[in-house]
Amino acid sequence: MHKVIYDTDPGVDDAMALLFLHRHPEIDLLGITTVFGNASVEMTTRNALFLKREWNIAAPVSKGAGVTIDHAREERAWPAMVHGDNGLGNIAVPEMVDVPVDPRPAHRFIIDTVRAHPGEVRLVAVGRMTNLALALKEDPEIAMLVKDVVIMGGNFYVPGNVSPVAEANIHGDPEAADIVMTAPWKVVVIGLDVTSITTMSRSYLGGMAAKGDGAVKLLDALSQHYIDFYSHSVEDGMMVHDSCACVYVVAPELFSSITGAVRVVCGGIADGQTIVRPDGRRFPPGDWDGLPSQVVCTGIESEKVIDLIRDTLLAA
Amino acid sequence: MHKVIYDTDPGVDDAMALLFLHRHPEIDLLGITTVFGNASVEMTTRNALFLKREWNIAAPVSKGAGVTIDHAREERAWPAMVHGDNGLGNIAVPEMVDVPVDPRPAHRFIIDTVRAHPGEVRLVAVGRMTNLALALKEDPEIAMLVKDVVIMGGNFYVPGNVSPVAEANIHGDPEAADIVMTAPWKVVVIGLDVTSITTMSRSYLGGMAAKGDGAVKLLDALSQHYIDFYSHSVEDGMMVHDSCACVYVVAPELFSSITGAVRVVCGGIADGQTIVRPDGRRFPPGDWDGLPSQVVCTGIESEKVIDLIRDTLLAA
Repeated sequence: MHKVIYDTDPGVDDAMALLFLHRHPEIDLLGITTVFGNASVEMTTRNALFLKREWNIAAPVSKGAGVTIDHAREERAWPAMVHGDNGLGNIAVPEMVDVPVDPRPAHRFIIDTVRAHPGEVRLVAVGRMTNLALALKEDPEIAMLVKDVVIMGGNFYVPGNVSPVAEANIHGDPEAADIVMTAPWKVVVIGLDVTSITTMSRSYLGGMAAKGDGAVKLLDALSQHYIDFYSHSVEDGMMVHDSCACVYVVAPELFSSITGAVRVVCGGIADGQTIVRPDGRRFPPGDWDGLPSQVVCTGIESEKVIDLIRDTLLAA
Repeated sequence: MHKVIYDTDPGVDDAMALLFLHRHPEIDLLGITTVFGNASVEMTTRNALFLKREWNIAAPVSKGAGVTIDHAREERAWPAMVHGDNGLGNIAVPEMVDVPVDPRPAHRFIIDTVRAHPGEVRLVAVGRMTNLALALKEDPEIAMLVKDVVIMGGNFYVPGNVSPVAEANIHGDPEAADIVMTAPWKVVVIGLDVTSITTMSRSYLGGMAAKGDGAVKLLDALSQHYIDFYSHSVEDGMMVHDSCACVYVVAPELFSSITGAVRVVCGGIADGQTIVRPDGRRFPPGDWDGLPSQVVCTGIESEKVIDLIRDTLLAA
């Protein structure tokens, strides 16, 4: 069993990934930590509580960061055109959900849970990296105590999605992401190189909803606005960004990867860009020297990933 | 006939490209302008004069910039491990070459020559972009008077060669390159995406030397050190970076490309990175807005390019 803490900003593709983690038989979901990104942290926390209730998920929800780790960074508008004004594709969600939230802030929840299961916890982070960076700042030793960190974020040899070189999760808090990438723990980076070519069509999801239970039908409903948004780049379907990171946890053999030290650009026109120095290539001394080598996914068997998501969601 | 000014820092692959320009029947070489990069500008100018004499090239040589356009930039060591201590693979080159240099500085030579042939001149720039940027600063109207600018430099969806994201020519003067990329003229960017996969083996070059005249034999001799250097990434051969840009001038059909505004990162860990915003992709407002769309080569028929270089050099 993989003990997972899911750090998330639901978010439409976050919701699909949550249902995947909840339903996969080899995953023990220890907790859901929320972060700002696809919407405010109040909204993403409310959405996490809503999905926990609707899908009968046992794991606690802990509320995390609502601003960048460097408070001097300018706030930007939420990406309502992508995830809807309410972060869940504008389906009806109650303003308040009568489910208790964990009393600890997310980064404290992460520290406590990692320390309770030394060497076992896999952090799956699919939003901005703020909570993970805060946890590292408060308790740097957790870097030695987690099993690994699997993140959805960044892009390496393909364009970005919020700038020509930056992906939204990393661009949303570059300083936090640089802390996470350069810490002495194992990070697996699932970025746009693989997620942007892993799409689920509207009809495929509709077919799942027709066969599946209420949880899958809810997922189908909340995904429609997101699929509409993607019409400029996907043929009637959606990129399943966050689910790719969750699939990696149980099926890493569906991915190919390179290794190398990773840095994040902070400031300037490349703000939020992730840069890997591939191991085995020679460069003059530079900003990647002495940093841990991370795993950067560059290839994916998209069809098998999509089918595994379907099979997992329908197995309930 | 293509009227070409060749801006260069010979440099081993620069030498091959020079012989290509000199020998191609559809190219009218109007001038050779030198710049620092592979060695000091004194050395690259001496090398250009030497090759002009050895190869009996009529075009004048004009000496260009020896420092970055932003004088505050730190100077770095010359890449002697690549091009040799003398910029020509450590073959014997006289300290002084008794060939007169054009009295004008390179950027002035460029301005005068462009103005003498309005709409006709193709600037082929394969070193740092300093001379072109200086010409634009002194006489911005030349942007409307050149036919196009074909540069060897940069990298887009592959790693760099002097940092994980930067290529040597651009990294050597990022501010100059940003001026060149964003000026209202047509720039074709021939970067590592295509040049790093276009290699000539030692034996192929040796075969050319065996059949060719003294010029080709000299080229073969001065290339040996460079081929030795490339042993870490090329199987007994050399990347023919600069020749690719020259081949584009006469055979653009051997390249595939995308279009988009191009910026160069100045400062920070991504210093010297070239970034294209591909036309047709949607991004929030940003630093690429309102800039001219340039041509970025992303594909190349390497074998045909190599054969065209051979056929051209041996046709004399």
